[in-house]
Amino acid sequence: MLPSWSESASRSSVLAFLDAASEIPPSERIAVFDNDGTLWCEKPEYIQLEFLVDRLRAAVARSPELAGREEYRALLAGDSTAVGEMGLQRVATALLELCADITPEAFDRTVREFFAAARHRDHGVPFRQMRYRPMLELIGELRAREFSVFVVSGGGTEFVRAIGDDFYGVPPQNVLGTEVEYRLDRSTGAVRLLRTNNVAGPPNEGAVKITGIHRMIGRRPVFAAGNSAGDAEMLEYAAAADGGLAVVVDHDDADREYAYASVAGSLDDTEPILETAARHGWTVVSMADDWRRVFDHDEARHG
Amino acid sequence: MLPSWSESASRSSVLAFLDAASEIPPSERIAVFDNDGTLWCEKPEYIQLEFLVDRLRAAVARSPELAGREEYRALLAGDSTAVGEMGLQRVATALLELCADITPEAFDRTVREFFAAARHRDHGVPFRQMRYRPMLELIGELRAREFSVFVVSGGGTEFVRAIGDDFYGVPPQNVLGTEVEYRLDRSTGAVRLLRTNNVAGPPNEGAVKITGIHRMIGRRPVFAAGNSAGDAEMLEYAAAADGGLAVVVDHDDADREYAYASVAGSLDDTEPILETAARHGWTVVSMADDWRRVFDHDEARHG
Repeated sequence: MLPSWSESASRSSVLAFLDAASEIPPSERIAVFDNDGTLWCEKPEYIQLEFLVDRLRAAVARSPELAGREEYRALLAGDSTAVGEMGLQRVATALLELCADITPEAFDRTVREFFAAARHRDHGVPFRQMRYRPMLELIGELRAREFSVFVVSGGGTEFVRAIGDDFYGVPPQNVLGTEVEYRLDRSTGAVRLLRTNNVAGPPNEGAVKITGIHRMIGRRPVFAAGNSAGDAEMLEYAAAADGGLAVVVDHDDADREYAYASVAGSLDDTEPILETAARHGWTVVSMADDWRRVFDHDEARHG
Repeated sequence: MLPSWSESASRSSVLAFLDAASEIPPSERIAVFDNDGTLWCEKPEYIQLEFLVDRLRAAVARSPELAGREEYRALLAGDSTAVGEMGLQRVATALLELCADITPEAFDRTVREFFAAARHRDHGVPFRQMRYRPMLELIGELRAREFSVFVVSGGGTEFVRAIGDDFYGVPPQNVLGTEVEYRLDRSTGAVRLLRTNNVAGPPNEGAVKITGIHRMIGRRPVFAAGNSAGDAEMLEYAAAADGGLAVVVDHDDADREYAYASVAGSLDDTEPILETAARHGWTVVSMADDWRRVFDHDEARHG
């Protein structure tokens, strides 16, 4: 079981949770996973941002004048200082305009086309191969125990939905992220939805993840995994359930992935997640020490 | 199949849809049902309003001064003219205060206790027996064909969730209704949610049902059933799907249920649903003619 996990305290804690799962009523077996940095790699850039910049390049190829817009110019130049100064929110909002006025189905196709062609810039593999193999094994074990598995992402709901089934076996109704507003359109006859460039409410991070989980699932999860301060409340919520387990991924593996301190995409001045985890006694997974493989393309380590 | 349905055009249309379901990919077999007046009886009063008035009586027993408040006074006196003049929204908001500052779990228990004791004022039976038997049969047939069944109600999400599994076999994550806001509370140590008396966004009626369906399910349903103008957009949305079916319940049975023209709880100046249905060619179910039984306690009619 969990062959990509080394013998370690974190693996023991996960196994103990799985062993005790039969004591949880099946309807309460709800597991929630953050996505970026928890199920797949978020470095050197969020994959969704890579997608949006890809969309930007396609838009500029059609309408070169777009390249003059401040947010777009910084993105195309790869000027991360300028992007950082403008803030992810402002940049993301500008990029959302590139996906406005299309149906969810058309957006879905666009995302799938991106994933079919794109490669991770450092690893040179399709992004599907940037999923963490140990987490896929864990999802499999949870599902074998009749858990309902949900992805609760700070990223866009529709973006994650487009790949959720193929990447994680998670259907659209089990994906909750940051949502855009839609508008009804009847201009082609039958009623349909069209994306707008407005984000519907605050980004799905921090306390918003808890209220979103309640809104969508209606039950308190007994398992949560995350990697940044944007997941702290969700982890706290699951850990406080009877027999609940909270798992935090520590990105300390510069060789096979990246070594960095995770931060929430949209939250400032939050406690570093490893400090929160230590304070609460959550299970921390060291990528370097606790995972024999991170990706399929890694050679397995002994341990 | 569908033993409580008479031989009729509406039954034939439902059977044709069920026969063709095998042509729909399983992941797209999404069916949505309105609740009040579609799955259970909504007369002489919405069952949720009966519940809230029950809560009001309990609150007045503890704090008699509450009876002086205008909305409460009208409700306790059964003064439907005064209630109508204040509007359902104002009255419901006042009643929501009685359920504020408790956890979703405590609210859930309160709703279950109500259903265990309460009786329908005209039929004298528990509200569970006020479910429409033909609709339960239809849900069973859909589920036998691997449909995911969702309840999309104008009523409160948590109220319907409390009975969804027992009444319809629908788990909490498949219930979407009008939502209250929650707040995080740590006063007892572990983090938890507490209900507020604020409704989160507009009531779940009309176009809001479509955007809510997209938000929660992420797919366009291929089947929808409703009974009022508050369901019109949802019905239109499902009917426009490939092979989609929209079913409208016509309350024309004064003998076994009630004869009335359905209206949306919160929408004014909308087209009567039977006119909308006729314009679009949707399937209209006459309770009087098309259902051999409405409730379990009815004797079956031949036909």
